[in-house]
Amino acid sequence: MKLMYTRGYTAVGVQEICAHAGVNKGSFYHFFPSKRALVLAVIDAYGQRVRDLWKDAITVNGSLLERMQRVFECVCDTQHDLAETNNQMYGCPIGNLALELSCLDEGIRQRLRETFSDWADAIEHMLRLAIANGDLPAIDTTTTAQTIVAYFEGVLMLAKIQNDPNVVKQLAQRAVYLVEAAADIRRNARP
Amino acid sequence: MKLMYTRGYTAVGVQEICAHAGVNKGSFYHFFPSKRALVLAVIDAYGQRVRDLWKDAITVNGSLLERMQRVFECVCDTQHDLAETNNQMYGCPIGNLALELSCLDEGIRQRLRETFSDWADAIEHMLRLAIANGDLPAIDTTTTAQTIVAYFEGVLMLAKIQNDPNVVKQLAQRAVYLVEAAADIRRNARP
Repeated sequence: MKLMYTRGYTAVGVQEICAHAGVNKGSFYHFFPSKRALVLAVIDAYGQRVRDLWKDAITVNGSLLERMQRVFECVCDTQHDLAETNNQMYGCPIGNLALELSCLDEGIRQRLRETFSDWADAIEHMLRLAIANGDLPAIDTTTTAQTIVAYFEGVLMLAKIQNDPNVVKQLAQRAVYLVEAAADIRRNARP
Repeated sequence: MKLMYTRGYTAVGVQEICAHAGVNKGSFYHFFPSKRALVLAVIDAYGQRVRDLWKDAITVNGSLLERMQRVFECVCDTQHDLAETNNQMYGCPIGNLALELSCLDEGIRQRLRETFSDWADAIEHMLRLAIANGDLPAIDTTTTAQTIVAYFEGVLMLAKIQNDPNVVKQLAQRAVYLVEAAADIRRNARP
């Protein structure tokens, strides 16, 4: 996971992965028929971590904004820790693999697509709870959830390219603007 | 440019580039000392195209939203044409190279950072004109411009991973939410 996160899929070979993990190739191939099989497992593992962030945030007592804030803080903290340990920002592991691989391998693209879709589902669930609680007017939760996923990925890209985790801190919380403006426009559109 | 856009930097070799362009290696190395030198030129060329989109939009007679709409339409049209020609979405050439290369080569990272920064400058210029014209209240134009760059990159990533240019059409115009909500919050914060 670490090597594919920090160096990408194409640039890393099975030999290097084995050396890094301290296992021989026989052990590697006992568990994974190929590097491709490993990257699918890596996508699932990283994908689940992020989905759990959104799912866990629902258990926070508070408003939608406070729940979203919890996710931003977790992402900011993780990226800060990683940047301090490695002296380098690596951004979103799924976003990195998405841009590297989605045109090269249809099966991997599908898995990445499902991962983003899972995240959007978890966010949409949070938005729907907020609507049910009267914390948010009725909005197009599906599209709004997708805009939040997109924005997060873009923020992590900018932070990576600036090699500065503070960019996440500065920009991430503006994801709520995508919800607030959707709500206002919907309100204004009412007769 | 096309090969690095469609397949990435690491996966493409000088031999393949020469075969694709119908030139021999001697000619290649006459103009570019290395594949790395070529990718820097590719980044500059793509970066300038996008910057020109934002600069040209200022010449559109109309409101800030109409000007931003012009850029969204150009990006949507380009991605639609590319997807029809290749039966595959490739997303943003700069974003792709950013996630592939920014941890691997400090010089390339700096060039990519300058490219994103150029785009943000062009967007900020458009926002400042809107404020000067009374079309927009005073907001933090620097941060808002960065959120628009981030959002665009994220939208193109989602479209690529879904291999569907309609995702760009559906999500791109919500970039204006990042401006509208920034303006509202600023207004509400006033005494």
